[in-house]
Amino acid sequence: MERRSFLKNAGVGLAAGSVAMPAIAQNAPTIKWRLASSFPKSLDTIYGGAEVMAKRVAEATGGKFQIQVFAGGEIVPGPAVFDAVKDGTVEMGHTVSYYFFGKDPSYALETAVPFGMTNRQMDAWMRHGNGGKLMAELFGKSNILVVPCGNTTTQMGGWYRKEIKTVADLKGLKIRIGGFAGAVISKLGAVPQQIPGGDIYPALEKGTIDAAEWIGPYDDQKLGFNKVAKYYYYPGWWEGGPQVSAYVNTKKWAELPKEYQTILQLACADAHVDMVAKYDARNPTALKQLVGSGTQLKQFPKEVMDACYKAAMELYAETSASNPTFKKIYDDYKKFMDDQILWMRVAEGSYNNYMHSKR
Amino acid sequence: MERRSFLKNAGVGLAAGSVAMPAIAQNAPTIKWRLASSFPKSLDTIYGGAEVMAKRVAEATGGKFQIQVFAGGEIVPGPAVFDAVKDGTVEMGHTVSYYFFGKDPSYALETAVPFGMTNRQMDAWMRHGNGGKLMAELFGKSNILVVPCGNTTTQMGGWYRKEIKTVADLKGLKIRIGGFAGAVISKLGAVPQQIPGGDIYPALEKGTIDAAEWIGPYDDQKLGFNKVAKYYYYPGWWEGGPQVSAYVNTKKWAELPKEYQTILQLACADAHVDMVAKYDARNPTALKQLVGSGTQLKQFPKEVMDACYKAAMELYAETSASNPTFKKIYDDYKKFMDDQILWMRVAEGSYNNYMHSKR
Repeated sequence: MERRSFLKNAGVGLAAGSVAMPAIAQNAPTIKWRLASSFPKSLDTIYGGAEVMAKRVAEATGGKFQIQVFAGGEIVPGPAVFDAVKDGTVEMGHTVSYYFFGKDPSYALETAVPFGMTNRQMDAWMRHGNGGKLMAELFGKSNILVVPCGNTTTQMGGWYRKEIKTVADLKGLKIRIGGFAGAVISKLGAVPQQIPGGDIYPALEKGTIDAAEWIGPYDDQKLGFNKVAKYYYYPGWWEGGPQVSAYVNTKKWAELPKEYQTILQLACADAHVDMVAKYDARNPTALKQLVGSGTQLKQFPKEVMDACYKAAMELYAETSASNPTFKKIYDDYKKFMDDQILWMRVAEGSYNNYMHSKR
Repeated sequence: MERRSFLKNAGVGLAAGSVAMPAIAQNAPTIKWRLASSFPKSLDTIYGGAEVMAKRVAEATGGKFQIQVFAGGEIVPGPAVFDAVKDGTVEMGHTVSYYFFGKDPSYALETAVPFGMTNRQMDAWMRHGNGGKLMAELFGKSNILVVPCGNTTTQMGGWYRKEIKTVADLKGLKIRIGGFAGAVISKLGAVPQQIPGGDIYPALEKGTIDAAEWIGPYDDQKLGFNKVAKYYYYPGWWEGGPQVSAYVNTKKWAELPKEYQTILQLACADAHVDMVAKYDARNPTALKQLVGSGTQLKQFPKEVMDACYKAAMELYAETSASNPTFKKIYDDYKKFMDDQILWMRVAEGSYNNYMHSKR
């Protein structure tokens, strides 16, 4: 049938695209959800990921499925998002699972662990490896469905008041750093500190701490760390590709019409790509401005990287010995990552290194 | 309001998730579209991307918006997809724009050009740089809306019957390679050949051609090139991150309800991530099997890469001088890519190189 007449017969005018269409009809359920983000509005990239997702869900349902996004602290504090979704205080959350390292280090494998996967490797593991299934099992025990919804990509190693030239320089280093990474550098004598984003600047300025890791150029610049610490180290070996995820209470999920479940998953996938693209588009300018302001970019010495790598592998062995859940997931994660590296260092790696040499 | 009673009031039973809900109501328009793919069904990764997208669109609309996917040749030959969408023969296509290099080399910038962007850089340029806007202008002239819907990531450099040790080895080399890349190596004396995927094997076996580039380990293995060419070179410097896109006829697009427009865009974003994840999950095993079968992995010598890079830059200068549209888009593309590299070689690049050294 000719397209135009087909549409007429289907009762669709040609102005369809320009006027609000009853594609999602009046008798479709109107659903209003609350999403608790673990992040402040100032992090327009990470916090913004939830807003990008919610906006698209509303557009795809003609405003019938509305997800209202609340910043960390508005309904519950950032670190309380896991329990808020688990208990159904909110239908959804947007967070990073390694915040819940204290409950079980296994959760960190859904976001990032030291010397772990990059964003692309995580996508492959979650979608076409065993990652999605393993995480559904792990979080399902807490009535949570995790849906990847962003990634910061490889982060920077943070801001240091003094240079890190040898492993000995880590001894006694008071550094703001969380979860697994803190446990790794503790093995080398550093003293990890847990400090909320907003309190890092004064602590670094006063010298209460010697160093602090946050995210990358775009986010770090906003907090002004370059004014109180001279050295900006890379890479953030504990965050090769931290995945940000939407948490959905499984009971609330089951109550959604199938179409809304699909639309929510698709909107998360869109926000997932969008967050990486936004970081990649904004980090270069921030990096140039930081270097222009006198920040000294430094790469962690190989000796330091090797010592941290060794400490991380020891920690994984210890954790695996005491935590069967962690062992089960980590063994699969590590095997998958090793295969990824085998391939990626060939075409992608050699191509990137050549292109990087041309700039 | 308590969630459960809220849903009751909204007329939503608790079995909502388990039974088909009228979320997309009976009076929503039923729309049936045909999508012409440029790819054969045997390429389950690339061709499959359109099917993944179409399946999700159907799920998100309760089967009301159906997109039927046709392989290359079923409605129109692969290279005719551009015109088929432009003329409205089909509502949609799924293809790679550098196939249309002959119409205008500017189109290649929407997929990949020699020494061009990686998949992540393309995402950043399309979503948060000027790429999306520039491509809407370019393809809009032909009534086509382009929506990114996949990426193969950095491809391999192809299969060679003889080693490539110096630039001189390119002289007279009959190689199956298309578009911009063919024009680049022609400058170095190679003789590019245009041969459909299915005809490459016999040509390589008979020695009618000396070399052929296709995609990467997973797809190349299926065509058995390892049986007729010993050397497998990397990287495919002419395809650092080829973007695969959905083409939509702009008139048909305007006829879609806004909700369906959004759902289509979201499903393309989901298929976009999924194709990369599928390639990353499948390439490592294929690469191991190829090497196990006797294939010799070789990296292009720096001398050869440098000569090709120089030839490519000359070609861009020549094309820019004669084609204002190309110049306008390429200038923006190159500037954006240079900034991307400036940042990516720092955290991401140093992290990847360290991890690659550990495998």
